[in-house]
Amino acid sequence: MNIRIYNARIITMEENRDIFLGEIHVKNNRISYVGDNKNAPKEIWNRDIDAQGNVIMPGFKNAHTHSAMTFLRSYADDLPLLEWLNEQVFPMEAKLTPDDIYHLSKLAIMEYLTSGITANFDMYLTPDTIAKASRDCGYRTVMVGGLNNFSQSFEDMERWYNEYNNPEDLVTFQLGFHAEYTNSKENLEKLAALAHKYKAPICAHSSESKSEVEGCIERYGVTPTVLFDKLGMFDYGGSYYHCIHMTDEDIEIMAKKGIYAVTNPASNLKLASGIARIDDMLKAGIHIAIGTDGPSSNNCLDMFREMFLTTGLAKVKGNNASAVSADQVLKMATVEGAHAMGLKDADILAEGKFADLIMIDLQWPNMQPINNIIKNIVYSGSKQNVKMTMVNGKILYEDGNFFIGTPANEIYQKANEIIERMKK
Amino acid sequence: MNIRIYNARIITMEENRDIFLGEIHVKNNRISYVGDNKNAPKEIWNRDIDAQGNVIMPGFKNAHTHSAMTFLRSYADDLPLLEWLNEQVFPMEAKLTPDDIYHLSKLAIMEYLTSGITANFDMYLTPDTIAKASRDCGYRTVMVGGLNNFSQSFEDMERWYNEYNNPEDLVTFQLGFHAEYTNSKENLEKLAALAHKYKAPICAHSSESKSEVEGCIERYGVTPTVLFDKLGMFDYGGSYYHCIHMTDEDIEIMAKKGIYAVTNPASNLKLASGIARIDDMLKAGIHIAIGTDGPSSNNCLDMFREMFLTTGLAKVKGNNASAVSADQVLKMATVEGAHAMGLKDADILAEGKFADLIMIDLQWPNMQPINNIIKNIVYSGSKQNVKMTMVNGKILYEDGNFFIGTPANEIYQKANEIIERMKK
Repeated sequence: MNIRIYNARIITMEENRDIFLGEIHVKNNRISYVGDNKNAPKEIWNRDIDAQGNVIMPGFKNAHTHSAMTFLRSYADDLPLLEWLNEQVFPMEAKLTPDDIYHLSKLAIMEYLTSGITANFDMYLTPDTIAKASRDCGYRTVMVGGLNNFSQSFEDMERWYNEYNNPEDLVTFQLGFHAEYTNSKENLEKLAALAHKYKAPICAHSSESKSEVEGCIERYGVTPTVLFDKLGMFDYGGSYYHCIHMTDEDIEIMAKKGIYAVTNPASNLKLASGIARIDDMLKAGIHIAIGTDGPSSNNCLDMFREMFLTTGLAKVKGNNASAVSADQVLKMATVEGAHAMGLKDADILAEGKFADLIMIDLQWPNMQPINNIIKNIVYSGSKQNVKMTMVNGKILYEDGNFFIGTPANEIYQKANEIIERMKK
Repeated sequence: MNIRIYNARIITMEENRDIFLGEIHVKNNRISYVGDNKNAPKEIWNRDIDAQGNVIMPGFKNAHTHSAMTFLRSYADDLPLLEWLNEQVFPMEAKLTPDDIYHLSKLAIMEYLTSGITANFDMYLTPDTIAKASRDCGYRTVMVGGLNNFSQSFEDMERWYNEYNNPEDLVTFQLGFHAEYTNSKENLEKLAALAHKYKAPICAHSSESKSEVEGCIERYGVTPTVLFDKLGMFDYGGSYYHCIHMTDEDIEIMAKKGIYAVTNPASNLKLASGIARIDDMLKAGIHIAIGTDGPSSNNCLDMFREMFLTTGLAKVKGNNASAVSADQVLKMATVEGAHAMGLKDADILAEGKFADLIMIDLQWPNMQPINNIIKNIVYSGSKQNVKMTMVNGKILYEDGNFFIGTPANEIYQKANEIIERMKK
């Protein structure tokens, strides 16, 4: 399928390249041209789309989520992290089947598409069924290990890491563990050895709640970050999810190791976990990506909400209205997210990159007047403005319709059946 | 125009009335029936709408905004309140004509409709043109005086108060002033006398920034709230906009006087003004409504964003994930907003009330599964879910289309022309 989109305001997200009016060509799953109309090669297209002056830009990257937790949306709210996790989430998750996870992941993918999110970094049970859901939809997913003392095994993780290792594939896998407080020291040491064996980055929830950090200090006498550093776990980089309760020393270690901070502001408000030190981390040279976290703690999967919160919370926390600009936030939600996820071909719009892109409709009142397109997107944008979402060269969502191989209402029905069965 | 909407999940927002499947009848501008299908009177309808199980509920009330500031959306961002106001906003506002305000207000009304907001509490220049914009669209606006040392005069305000005083009309007016720091003591004393003359509530920005409160203490030796109390300004109630930097004594006075707290969380983040003490105010018995503030400091006009922030920020501020429930927030955004604005007939869905209502489309991934509709709306809802917005018995927005007497693109063009002219 070859597609041309012309008459578009193009935001490539390349460094120092301004927004320009032009066109973009897609051949199979990659971009073959981005530039002005004059120099564009003339060819025959399967689809020739007039963008009518609307924005074409790279899709957002959801750099931390638990997709299949859609079944717990609005099920258990208004509880602190550990109570929510231990008393509500874990008992319900114990009832999930791999088939449930397949359908529930699809529901999340639909929502990602409505928010212009073209890839997700997904930590959840049963990677094989997550991979199948993602492939069946034509969606891009980077799965990440969630090693812990109870469910995922060390051997499984190494197998998945080797099985899902083709960067051309829609689905890949990265090493990861749930968190310090759900893993034995032995687990953490084995993970460090695995990271060294493959010279691989590693990912985990870290320093999400104050009590988590206090617990680690009680157990080991140091913060999670200092512990991980001592164990050599992040010697090849990786990502921290949440990372709210960070000391200056923690931040220094993250910067030195090149660990990405993946911030999850909506979840952090809803679980009263705290407000991350985004501005301090930026100043320390840490790269920041953005995630929605799972739909049970958010409760929606919306990059517009997260972008506004990332800058808004940084502003109010530092008592500084100039902190974290719209340009910086848009980079976090696109380029930095792709890099954190190991998707080096899904970061910007350029020849040879994956055709993972979205159209933002400016013909809505919240996008007018057009004083500054990037500020309009970051401070005023909403799901309503996402006119089209393309993943790997295929349009999966357009004008409110989904093209993912299954009718929307079948997926809704499945999700309701699953939670009703569990409540029994 | 008589309309029936059937097969709807109805949230009336009446105290202790559960969500039920039923129908609602609209005759001219009022509701003539809300109840189950069995007992509904059978009649001939101009439109008979199958809600297909979607939600019908009262429209949201935007209890503090400056609508016409749409022209400054994404124009001057990332600045603290007083710098933003004095160096960016005021010089540009000086160039506005009444005709500009007419068109720019319409742009805001369009955005309110997309977010299910059926009435706004609007403090801005030239009420006559705001009133005309609102009436021409068929929209409900409560205007509020913005008395200050520079523009609006005391005599104008009294005239407007008497002119726009018909509660049957789409447009009404309440007494108000910009803020303590933009008014002389003489102004404040005259306002107190006016409130007493009409036994009327009064509205103002109060305690939005720390420096504003410090300035008042320097000038008068007391906080704005204590000053207003001494002057008898809020003896008949009213509303405070923002009210972030409040002492325990301030909160006590607000509760005693029955002053509404109108919270504007997105604006408070973006201008780094602070996080309001919502939970403390609720516990003190203060009634709370929600506003977007103007599009220049937000930058969007979206009650879903504000609802999530109202509870999320209360949770993180109090380190308490149980603070401020979804039910409480939905009441703030509807019933409490209507009452703060003096719209006693636009609060709930019941026979005889204004037909100001919205349809929330549940057939979107962010609304599935349906574990709890109210939590889905407050924690996960977005503009995308607003299928229809009805004001005063007329459908002004449906399935992405506006029915306000002027084509959408004409209003967009006007807004762009206005800001381009000003930049010259």
